[in-house]
Amino acid sequence: MALVKLIEYADASPEVRSVYDDIMKTRAVDWINNFWKALANDPRELARIWQNVKQVMAPGALDPLVKEMVYVAVSATNGCEYCTFSHTAAARNKGMTDAMLMELMAVVGLANETNRLANGLRVDVDKQFKP
Amino acid sequence: MALVKLIEYADASPEVRSVYDDIMKTRAVDWINNFWKALANDPRELARIWQNVKQVMAPGALDPLVKEMVYVAVSATNGCEYCTFSHTAAARNKGMTDAMLMELMAVVGLANETNRLANGLRVDVDKQFKP
Amino acid sequence: MALVKLIEYADASPEVRSVYDDIMKTRAVDWINNFWKALANDPRELARIWQNVKQVMAPGALDPLVKEMVYVAVSATNGCEYCTFSHTAAARNKGMTDAMLMELMAVVGLANETNRLANGLRVDVDKQFKP
Amino acid sequence: MALVKLIEYADASPEVRSVYDDIMKTRAVDWINNFWKALANDPRELARIWQNVKQVMAPGALDPLVKEMVYVAVSATNGCEYCTFSHTAAARNKGMTDAMLMELMAVVGLANETNRLANGLRVDVDKQFKP
Amino acid sequence: MALVKLIEYADASPEVRSVYDDIMKTRAVDWINNFWKALANDPRELARIWQNVKQVMAPGALDPLVKEMVYVAVSATNGCEYCTFSHTAAARNKGMTDAMLMELMAVVGLANETNRLANGLRVDVDKQFKP
Amino acid sequence: MALVKLIEYADASPEVRSVYDDIMKTRAVDWINNFWKALANDPRELARIWQNVKQVMAPGALDPLVKEMVYVAVSATNGCEYCTFSHTAAARNKGMTDAMLMELMAVVGLANETNRLANGLRVDVDKQFKP
Repeated sequence: MALVKLIEYADASPEVRSVYDDIMKTRAVDWINNFWKALANDPRELARIWQNVKQVMAPGALDPLVKEMVYVAVSATNGCEYCTFSHTAAARNKGMTDAMLMELMAVVGLANETNRLANGLRVDVDKQFKP
Repeated sequence: MALVKLIEYADASPEVRSVYDDIMKTRAVDWINNFWKALANDPRELARIWQNVKQVMAPGALDPLVKEMVYVAVSATNGCEYCTFSHTAAARNKGMTDAMLMELMAVVGLANETNRLANGLRVDVDKQFKP
Repeated sequence: MALVKLIEYADASPEVRSVYDDIMKTRAVDWINNFWKALANDPRELARIWQNVKQVMAPGALDPLVKEMVYVAVSATNGCEYCTFSHTAAARNKGMTDAMLMELMAVVGLANETNRLANGLRVDVDKQFKP
Repeated sequence: MALVKLIEYADASPEVRSVYDDIMKTRAVDWINNFWKALANDPRELARIWQNVKQVMAPGALDPLVKEMVYVAVSATNGCEYCTFSHTAAARNKGMTDAMLMELMAVVGLANETNRLANGLRVDVDKQFKP
Repeated sequence: MALVKLIEYADASPEVRSVYDDIMKTRAVDWINNFWKALANDPRELARIWQNVKQVMAPGALDPLVKEMVYVAVSATNGCEYCTFSHTAAARNKGMTDAMLMELMAVVGLANETNRLANGLRVDVDKQFKP
Repeated sequence: MALVKLIEYADASPEVRSVYDDIMKTRAVDWINNFWKALANDPRELARIWQNVKQVMAPGALDPLVKEMVYVAVSATNGCEYCTFSHTAAARNKGMTDAMLMELMAVVGLANETNRLANGLRVDVDKQFKP
């Protein structure tokens, strides 16, 4: 149960529906997931976040599957259940196999481990790593 | 100044030197960075972490550059200065351009943002995302 | 199911009941929430945390509603489900509207995003920001 | 030393200068801080983040000083040095006194403490807190 | 529902069964918990993590109960539900009482609080604390 | 450079000096570290945090060295530089050797790794771990 009501398409204002329509068209799906229905309580916020997702996750210097896997890596690191489920599903739609997911998690786990070893022992950055 | 002394190659035991040699050979470099010199205070821990890094970061279902970028993404999320510098340097050695780094950071930033929107509004996971 | 049993008022020692009574009186409610029932397994810890909450959340240089919203912001950032629900409820009791909650979450999300951009690109603090 | 070069106004493209100009005009300052100079390595990213900051931090259901203090609270929770310095400076410009800062930190500290007590004891959310 | 299927002993390959057998023998239990069943989707990853846990959590300079309590402290700090439940159970098996758990949580909570006070006020490290 | 001025003993009010005196007496040291000098900008906050530290870190169901090591574990996990330095120094004063520190960091690193594996794969808690 979310902290705000979920705005269904049938109950949405034209401003919200316009964003919902763009989400469904861009992603070639016929439903709206709960994240957007929650944000729709503030139509400007809904539009802002969607514009950001649309721009940042588009193909560019990195391919979309790599971007989705980075999203999963960050979500797993932060312990966000919703984002881990939703972006793992998105990454699978873009071609991520179970073998790739397991290997991604191995990197995420290792990075979280060595981050704490470096921070816990307060290791100084080598000058060779400075750009 | 690290919390433990840094073990230089010249002062290292044969056990530690053996790991140092493998690091330099595997990475085709002629120096050891501070992270390993700190871990060398416990030679078994040095060997353990190096074996993990060697196994996890090897080519597999994901290519090594993608893995380095995931490492950078996690390190930036956790605010680990040492790991951010060292793995950005490693990623650049494997071909990451400034354009790729900027785009990587955009995804990392966005994921950190939407992780908190989903967690803060306590949005329930849609059944369509469940495997 | 919590990791420790929840101490109900009926089963509580006089020491615990005294804290429970003060919580209900201070907050003008007639029930004790699970957080305190869990802490009551250690009566000194229960008393310590309650004294801290009572002192810190009292009116002062900041008004109580602002304090509750800061509490929600931290809880959302840390992904604490219990605290997000309980302090959002408290903030609403003090006057937070849905519009305020949505705007609060927008700031929380943005701060989490730019925190990682600054940390990930390792931007040096400008001298103008130093006090 | 940042991981990317800082783009000074004198060296910036017209696209970047346009954003810089808007930042200085909106904030009524005559200099650009390092955060934006780092983002300027990707002009679209610079424009995207600036648009977000401008929209989210504008007056709305919450007043700008409250928003800046929430930003400080999140930055302190995440340990972001850059953002803690820059947003504390911004909050002071908007009227935050030392007494307010100390009280803000007290709330941030307490919330971080009780977040872990609730998460560590795995306390279930009371039904009364569910909306 | 996990993001990958759980590999039951009956369906496991000889390679996976060999690790399962070692886990049960080492821990003197007759069942495998879900964490390992999820990792078993990548038998090399299962073997890697188990070897790490077996080596790190063995008696050494610190006793095993202290190690389990440190594990609980980290898991509570990160908000990991699975690890908090599993390592609290393990610590109890090694002798942790409710009084010890409550006191452990008090330290975890306090450390999380003062971490943010120090980071939020950007307090410089005293030279006396430098090794 | 902290975000607030540091209050030296010579400049402190009687209320602040009284806390400073108690810190020095309790810890059998003849100087005050920067953390307290920063908190002293709000004498009530200084007194509150000191009372908490004094109560929580006193001998009880856990011995003081174990408590200091837990403090270090949490501080390393959160990346708090100040607290990592100060509590490592405190733990060493209470008998922590380099071998113990290295082993502590190994547990901290491993816990941070497996926390993300469990969270990233969304593993359900086994019923056997529920109390």
